[in-house]
Amino acid sequence: MAYKKFRSIKPEIRVLGVDDGVFIPHNKGYADVVGVVFRGGYWLDGAMRTEVEVDGLDATEKIASMIIASPHYQQLRVIMLNGITFAGFNIVDIKELYNKTKLSVIAVTRDKPDMEEIKKALENLPEKERRWRAILNAGELLTVQTREGEEPVYMQIAGITRSDAEKIVKMTSTRSNIPEPLRVAHIVASGLTRFREKH
Amino acid sequence: MAYKKFRSIKPEIRVLGVDDGVFIPHNKGYADVVGVVFRGGYWLDGAMRTEVEVDGLDATEKIASMIIASPHYQQLRVIMLNGITFAGFNIVDIKELYNKTKLSVIAVTRDKPDMEEIKKALENLPEKERRWRAILNAGELLTVQTREGEEPVYMQIAGITRSDAEKIVKMTSTRSNIPEPLRVAHIVASGLTRFREKH
Repeated sequence: MAYKKFRSIKPEIRVLGVDDGVFIPHNKGYADVVGVVFRGGYWLDGAMRTEVEVDGLDATEKIASMIIASPHYQQLRVIMLNGITFAGFNIVDIKELYNKTKLSVIAVTRDKPDMEEIKKALENLPEKERRWRAILNAGELLTVQTREGEEPVYMQIAGITRSDAEKIVKMTSTRSNIPEPLRVAHIVASGLTRFREKH
Repeated sequence: MAYKKFRSIKPEIRVLGVDDGVFIPHNKGYADVVGVVFRGGYWLDGAMRTEVEVDGLDATEKIASMIIASPHYQQLRVIMLNGITFAGFNIVDIKELYNKTKLSVIAVTRDKPDMEEIKKALENLPEKERRWRAILNAGELLTVQTREGEEPVYMQIAGITRSDAEKIVKMTSTRSNIPEPLRVAHIVASGLTRFREKH
């Protein structure tokens, strides 16, 4: 698979952290998805938003469009996702997200996803093959020790080497074992967004 | 007027930065107001939201309720507002906001407000005396040189001494001449919120 190798990773590298807001599981409706632009692990420089359908199939497309339409697009180098599932089982295909945006993608999770449980949940949803393909496209779950003496996190990557992704994830974990763009995206998304029922 | 004197100002003091989101001036409707909780000038620890009427009279009440209902209320020490006017001419009475929340209030602006222009705008709005009283309650416009060699900012204060307010405004201006809680509240509010027409 094609990927970018970073010649050097600047401490001020622009990273977008993406997370979803509140929603009611299994209820038809839309959840907000928030993106925060960080310079490295310290400074917030921008914010953007889109919405995706609960248990829908539009997360990859919607997140890609949000990023490409943003005034920050030209400065961004990396997209960090809080895992690959948004608003329930609306799964981001990180290979496709990389192809659409040409930006390296790193999906980070605190907990190891339970693959058997996910497979079972997919059984009840339309287009389960497409969803399963997105899960397979996320590739191997890689462990990263972001901070000494703290819990490791897990990452899946597209369009970036493992070694570059590791460096960026470690460098941006300035406040906790989670990269700062994702810690802040989570706080903002859960504090500010609202669930909208489908009309 | 009653005020709190800080025995010491800790670098990790919890400050709430408050700003309004997008709205269409003079159009009946609601604008989002966003609050971001900062530890000093560095770390975002929480986010909250309310909405206020464009050119309405509910900003003081709505912002106070948002803060008091928040899980961060007990940790907060200072409220920083991006000026005293929200969603057009919905003016925050900072004395009343202090009385309701018992938190020190510092309203900060980059530009000196044009009092004659404000007075003229108020002529066309209901309850202009009440609005004017809120403006008077904001008190003297104090100049603060937050960063050496950069433009000063202006502040109005309630429930805090000038010297404590100056220290906090300077200490939190870590990234620009504007305190970081307000710089980030502005980015988040303008990037994420939407105007809602009145129904």
